[in-house]
This record gives sequence, C-alpha cells and structure tokens, in this order.
Amino acid sequence: MTYQELTDQIFEKKSYLCVGLDTDPARIPQHLKNLADPVFEFNRRIIDSTYDLCVAYKLNIAFYESLGPQGWESLRKTVHHIPNTHFTIADAKRGDIGNTSRMYAKTFFETFPFDSITVNPYMGRDSVQPFLNFPGKWVILLCLTSNTGSHDFQMIADKEGVHLYEKVILQSKEWAGREQLMYVVGATHPEQLVSIRAALPESFFLIPGVGAQGGDLEAISRAGWNPQCGMLINSSRGIIYADSTDAFDKAAREEALKLQQHMARFIGQQRG
Amino acid sequence: MTYQELTDQIFEKKSYLCVGLDTDPARIPQHLKNLADPVFEFNRRIIDSTYDLCVAYKLNIAFYESLGPQGWESLRKTVHHIPNTHFTIADAKRGDIGNTSRMYAKTFFETFPFDSITVNPYMGRDSVQPFLNFPGKWVILLCLTSNTGSHDFQMIADKEGVHLYEKVILQSKEWAGREQLMYVVGATHPEQLVSIRAALPESFFLIPGVGAQGGDLEAISRAGWNPQCGMLINSSRGIIYADSTDAFDKAAREEALKLQQHMARFIGQQRG
Repeated sequence: MTYQELTDQIFEKKSYLCVGLDTDPARIPQHLKNLADPVFEFNRRIIDSTYDLCVAYKLNIAFYESLGPQGWESLRKTVHHIPNTHFTIADAKRGDIGNTSRMYAKTFFETFPFDSITVNPYMGRDSVQPFLNFPGKWVILLCLTSNTGSHDFQMIADKEGVHLYEKVILQSKEWAGREQLMYVVGATHPEQLVSIRAALPESFFLIPGVGAQGGDLEAISRAGWNPQCGMLINSSRGIIYADSTDAFDKAAREEALKLQQHMARFIGQQRG
Repeated sequence: MTYQELTDQIFEKKSYLCVGLDTDPARIPQHLKNLADPVFEFNRRIIDSTYDLCVAYKLNIAFYESLGPQGWESLRKTVHHIPNTHFTIADAKRGDIGNTSRMYAKTFFETFPFDSITVNPYMGRDSVQPFLNFPGKWVILLCLTSNTGSHDFQMIADKEGVHLYEKVILQSKEWAGREQLMYVVGATHPEQLVSIRAALPESFFLIPGVGAQGGDLEAISRAGWNPQCGMLINSSRGIIYADSTDAFDKAAREEALKLQQHMARFIGQQRG
C-alpha cells in the first residue's frame, strides 16, 4: 500500500484507527476455546466487526509466536482474512545483522504478506536496510516508545542536547523517506510528539498507548496531525478485550466506533 | 544452567566455543533437501559432529521463523537434540512493552526449553524485566554489536562522554547480576572489549563476529578473559558452511576443532 493510498483510505473512512490484534489465548472467551483454532476465530470476529471503522490492523507477533507452530498458522489465517484495503503491520520489533535481517524481512514480507514491520534501530543502518530493500513494503522504526522504559535510553542526550530518539530520526531520514518509513511514537509523550512532527513533517507515525496505557486521543491527535493526517493510532486491549462474553465482537465494535467517531470529528475540524 | 555449571563445562572441555546454527535452507547440501526436515537433519549432523568441542549452541531464530510453521518444528527438534550439558541460546533479539515481553519469554523459556535469549535494550528496563522473572534462565543483552551499524547509535556519547553501550551496562547492572545477565559484545571491537571487561569484571560475554565477520580470536580472547573465562565466542557460517558436500559435518568438525584447540592453548596459558 502506498502513502497516497493510505491517506485516501483515512479520509474516505474518516478514521486513522489501527486495531491491535494482541490476541492472548488466556483472554479469549471460554466457549471459543473448544474450536479448532480459537485465536483465528477470535480475530476473524474482531475483524468482521471492526473493518469499516479502521484503516489498519497491527498483529503483535509475540502473542502468536508463544503458541508454537499453531500460533503461526493462526497468524497466517488472520493476515489473509484482513481485507486488502487495510494496512497490515507485523509488530515484531526485529533487527539484526544484515544477512539475518534479510531473513526476518522474508518472513514478514514473503512468507506472510504484511505491508509493514516494526524494527528496532539499536543495531543501526545495516540492520534496517534489508527491510527497506523490499519495494512497496514499509519499515516502522521504533523512535520513542510508550512504556516507562522509554526514559532509560531513548531520552539520553548527547553533548548538544540531542536525545537518542532524535538521533534515530536524524539518521534514518537519510535511509528512506515518507513513502517507506514510519515511526513508532508512544501516545504517552504528547509534548515530544510536537517536536517529532516538526522534524518529520510528512511522515506517518504509528502511535500506540491510547487506552490501556493511558494516552489521550485528543491531545495526541492535535500534536501529531499533518495535512495527510500522518497518524495511525493503535488500540489493542481497549478494543479486543472490551467484553469477555460471546458478545465480545459487538463490544469491540462499540469501542472502535467511539474512537472512530472521535477521529471523524477531529478530521472534520482540521479540514474545516 | 548456572554460572558455575557453565564455567565448569568450559574448563572441563577446554573450550568456550559456541556454534551458531544459522541454518539457511538455501545453503544446505543438495542431497539433504529431499528429506522430510532438511533443516533439522543438517543441524542434527552438525551437533553430532561438534558437541564435544563446544559448550553452547546459538540458534538464530530469524532463519527458522522465515520458514513458517515448519521452521518452528525444525527449531523444536533441534533444541531437543542438543545435549543438556550445553548452554542453549535463542538469538532472537526481542524486547517489547512488559506484557508482550512476557509472551516472548514464555515462547523461548516454556514453549521451547532455551537457557537464554538475546534481548535488545532500546525500550529500557521494563522491556527486559519480564525475561529476568524466569528463575534459572538468562538474558543476553545487546551491548556493542559486531556490525558496522553499531557505530550509528551504540557509540553516541552523552555530555560526560559516556557512550550508549556503556549506559546499557551501567543501568543493567542494577537489573541483575552475573548469574542471570550476559552481554553481546562483537569481536570487531577488541579495544572497547577491554573497557567493557573492566566495567563488568565477572559477567559472561557472548562474542559474535569471529570468522566471517573478521574478528580475531586471539586478540578477543586476551581482551575478554576473566578468571572464570567469562566468554562464549560464537562462530556460525565459518563452521556450518565450511563445506557444501555430504562431508559438511566432517568439515564443520575440523573448523570447530581449530577454534577449540586455539581456545585450549589460550586457557592453558592463562591458568598456567
């Protein structure tokens, strides 16, 4: 999916919502557990009840990997069930030396048909480049994450006062542009998001941390907005675990709808 | 495996060699490709021909993951085939927010019986802690990696001149000690290894980059040595791809033997 196609989807649907399929088997409604593939069945119903309200789905790979081979089968079925109008994110936070990153890229771009993968920048340019070598695919680079540990290293400043997460931005701008590179910026850092937007006026940001992690949708939307919207705001637990009965998909839709309506109002205000 | 057990193995075998099973299906000898599980068959023969010469096996997860569900089955069979006298490393370079890191830890410590996992520190303490909550299991934290990209961010200095990789050491010393935390230090940085050893006198280092990546075994051994040896030196491609015929396992043994004999001489000199 191209930058323009993603932007078009956002304005057509009046939504920049990404639904996070962090599907923990322990939190799946009891009656689904008797089915052959409970994780896929859960995801299928979440997708079917939310796809018109969101533009992207993010699958946190940890949850599938923890189930062994069966988990990868659930992952495969899920990603194939997502309509191809939607931007798909393998939230894998990978990154390794070149020949190894190439294998990870093959996994998520060839073995699985994801549009994008989250990548950890710690190992530097040659660990990210192999992912950028796949035309039409995206890298979403960790920049300033939503967790408290983001203060431990990402906030370290050099002698000119430039923080590590800002170094990641400055260097990575030389690796690829807005058509192939997005950035993870946690919703728990609205102040920094303003300066990150100034440093990257045209790029998309994947913004986790709204909802369960405490980020404020309105404040984040104001800080992150650009003329192409420029944001995918992710909610995982707040949507998919809204209810633990057989009505979980209806409850998920209600939560997604609240966020989408908020986004529609915000888009309306910005585009007046 | 405990710190003491690992040290005992090293001095008993006169080896601090770790064999890296980065098994790329494209580089497996042709005749193995007709078997039901070529990757496992390749690994089995490498393990059977090297186990008396090494103390650890490192499996780079990217290579297995890229094969989809079948790859995870090859991984499972391989890790179960490794004798339990050997330290096993899931070279996965994971790290995510707390509830997600816990899922990754479950994968490699429960679904698979690895002794240790490599973890990326970029997201900070709360992304590493879930791995440390498993008693008897180890975290191997990326510190200063072997690739050229290690200069991009890991070498950034703060206003006191402390580099990011040194910050990782300083902070992580408060998270766990030598019994549960090792560090990745690339063989391509022998000078920095001297100061890293001074900062972490008792810790083990996992040292990749000897062989295909150009690191010098003798220089690295001098820089990294402590009274418990304190090093696992990894070689992957130099051993497992030493030959592409059906004699690949014999050739792998010869390469492993050269490294082990060098290590035995070095240990002899140090303990003289």
